[in-house]
Amino acid sequence: MLKYILMQISSSVFNSAVEQLSSLPGIGRKTAHRLVLSLLNRDTDEIKTFGNTFVNLASEINYCSKCFTISEHSVCEICNSAQRNPNIICVVENVLDVVAIESTNQFKGKYHVLGGIISPMEGIGPNEIKINELIDRVEKENIEEIIMALSATMEGDATTYFIYKKIKDSEIKISTIARGIGIGDELEYTDELTLGKSITNRIPFESTLSV
Amino acid sequence: MLKYILMQISSSVFNSAVEQLSSLPGIGRKTAHRLVLSLLNRDTDEIKTFGNTFVNLASEINYCSKCFTISEHSVCEICNSAQRNPNIICVVENVLDVVAIESTNQFKGKYHVLGGIISPMEGIGPNEIKINELIDRVEKENIEEIIMALSATMEGDATTYFIYKKIKDSEIKISTIARGIGIGDELEYTDELTLGKSITNRIPFESTLSV
Repeated sequence: MLKYILMQISSSVFNSAVEQLSSLPGIGRKTAHRLVLSLLNRDTDEIKTFGNTFVNLASEINYCSKCFTISEHSVCEICNSAQRNPNIICVVENVLDVVAIESTNQFKGKYHVLGGIISPMEGIGPNEIKINELIDRVEKENIEEIIMALSATMEGDATTYFIYKKIKDSEIKISTIARGIGIGDELEYTDELTLGKSITNRIPFESTLSV
Repeated sequence: MLKYILMQISSSVFNSAVEQLSSLPGIGRKTAHRLVLSLLNRDTDEIKTFGNTFVNLASEINYCSKCFTISEHSVCEICNSAQRNPNIICVVENVLDVVAIESTNQFKGKYHVLGGIISPMEGIGPNEIKINELIDRVEKENIEEIIMALSATMEGDATTYFIYKKIKDSEIKISTIARGIGIGDELEYTDELTLGKSITNRIPFESTLSV
């Protein structure tokens, strides 16, 4: 059915545009059709601007040379900031995670953006992401603690373990972010793995009072 | 919160790309962030191809000069086809509607794509869409019937009525596609307006047997 629909619109530029949009995660062919049609309702110049934005993105995007977050300058604001503790590094998967953690206002150290996690299924090995660069930083910078803040998935755990094995012989403290029931969550709706972890990793009640 | 997140990624090319994607209907800022990040996981050349596809779309998209559907040639395959009845024109809002009707295999006439419907709220008046071009065809081509196949919304109905008023003094038969309960729908879940229409516009049972 969908293939049939595609064949019906006999315009190669239209179909290329549909193909490109539907190559993005979460956008199906039908949605892509609608999006391209909505683009075509705009002025020619606006559509060109839309396209050129991504051409510029490709050539002008810049990453911080230290932590690999997206940055306007060669070293990002966080790495450059004297207000932040350079002895603690929080390791995250991507830039959105930096944004998420920053919005909590609970972390005042530096970051290291891996740019992905180890995933044999998707052909992403340790060398495809910025693990060697992290080891480099561990050797050269005066780091006291590394906080592993990856997703609580199999891939995330595997990546954390891989990095742990690489670093464990150094003097550096390695921690991971806490797993447990979310604030506002009800016990009966929490899955048993999470609930189990939250019991194993229970903390003294007094420590919650000081926050 | 969202504004805060946006401020955190200090890269103008990144933010422009997010802005462009979130300008598409149904794509929010958070989704746009994820889409741009997923684009950035590709090779530079692939990202450029993505952008250039839309630049090409803007300059090379072509519409049929008769029915205004998207077409590779100056007159589309349907308008050119000798197999199709040139005396019946089906008026639709956009190209996807042509595709949808074609996939039913129930219509063997020609089309006229308005490129929108009258919508004062969005500043779309009769002159913004291809109504004058339809009147032109009515005057010049030998048309016997016009089938109005617009959405069953207030705007769709208003557009149908507007066109009806323009054409009604000619000899041309004007019909609209049937409204009623969908095939497979249950009566108790059908809204009262649709159900009412389906009773008012009831058809002889014999006519359903011949299909």
